Amino acid sequence: MQNNSCGTSRIAGCQFTLLPMSDKFVDIIMGALDEVDTSNIWKKTDDVSTCVRGKMEHVFDVTQALFLHAANTGEHVAMSGTFSIGCPGDTEADAYMDGAETPLNEATSKQISQQAGCKFSLYPMGREDYMDTIYEQIDLSKHRNVEVSASHYATRLDGDVKAIFEALHQSFDSVQEKVSHVTMTFTISANSPSNKT
Amino acid sequence: MQNNSCGTSRIAGCQFTLLPMSDKFVDIIMGALDEVDTSNIWKKTDDVSTCVRGKMEHVFDVTQALFLHAANTGEHVAMSGTFSIGCPGDTEADAYMDGAETPLNEATSKQISQQAGCKFSLYPMGREDYMDTIYEQIDLSKHRNVEVSASHYATRLDGDVKAIFEALHQSFDSVQEKVSHVTMTFTISANSPSNKT
Ligand SMILES: [Ca+2]
Repeated sequence: MQNNSCGTSRIAGCQFTLLPMSDKFVDIIMGALDEVDTSNIWKKTDDVSTCVRGKMEHVFDVTQALFLHAANTGEHVAMSGTFSIGCPGDTEADAYMDGAETPLNEATSKQISQQAGCKFSLYPMGREDYMDTIYEQIDLSKHRNVEVSASHYATRLDGDVKAIFEALHQSFDSVQEKVSHVTMTFTISANSPSNKT
Repeated sequence: MQNNSCGTSRIAGCQFTLLPMSDKFVDIIMGALDEVDTSNIWKKTDDVSTCVRGKMEHVFDVTQALFLHAANTGEHVAMSGTFSIGCPGDTEADAYMDGAETPLNEATSKQISQQAGCKFSLYPMGREDYMDTIYEQIDLSKHRNVEVSASHYATRLDGDVKAIFEALHQSFDSVQEKVSHVTMTFTISANSPSNKT
């Protein structure tokens, strides 16, 4: 059942959990969902996680906007998830691949200034030279607004949430141009009482 | 800088976030850390995540115990993370590879009964036949105490937390016997108000 090839759609997705460390977690999550325009992505939520799928730029736009709106409450909020593209068998939701390229939440996200820390790891699948691919394609030095540091099993980014998501998006995008199936795990945290920023 | 080979140590690790959706999140996390014996693993925590490293059985034992003790408070608690083994360059903490095999928290974990839902994905790295490896090595049907279902980009497990971690551990273990570098992402959630169990 080997099928590493991908269709023409290049549908991207993100499976994530948005976790406010607060008694008001339900209100915070519902409030974020209320503020964010998810009309151009496929979305499914259950008690463990939320999955969004569609064009890559919309998947990043919605994920970033949900985190921003939740963190903007001032509560300690974390989001952990996995971005995917080219996953063998991922062929549904083609309806969401049509339509505009402009991310729907860009304007409102721009208005929210929020510092955060993030750890991420990129996994190009099905390639023996996957380590080379990572080193060749990712140039985090051009992201002057994020502080980059090494962490176990991950790269750490510190800075404004929008600069962090921009670095994540560009890293993921540059690797998926070379490799069919790519996954990227991330955990982003804001307003932690143990964070000095 | 290609180096897919691994040393003799086969050190395993898990980078995770433990997230109680409660105003008492600091007490719950500190309480869990207080209850769990982490003396046979390397451990580092910062504001984004915690990393534990050592023998595979101890990494799973400690991760499971931390989640169990946090969930045992009755609060809605989630844990999201990535298990890794054979990661090129992961050579430190060899001191933790000596010593006993018996997981230190097995006895106390056995006493906690807790239902949860979990989504996980296995990523064998550096192999063109990675999908075959996943299908060949994972036999979740033998885990009669967990309910298995398909989810986008992941497999869902429902049942007792210890049965879930046993299935995670055995799946990870069977793939890492065939593939040098393996990562496995997971998100486990307990006491969610939107979960009927
Ligand atoms: Ca080859």
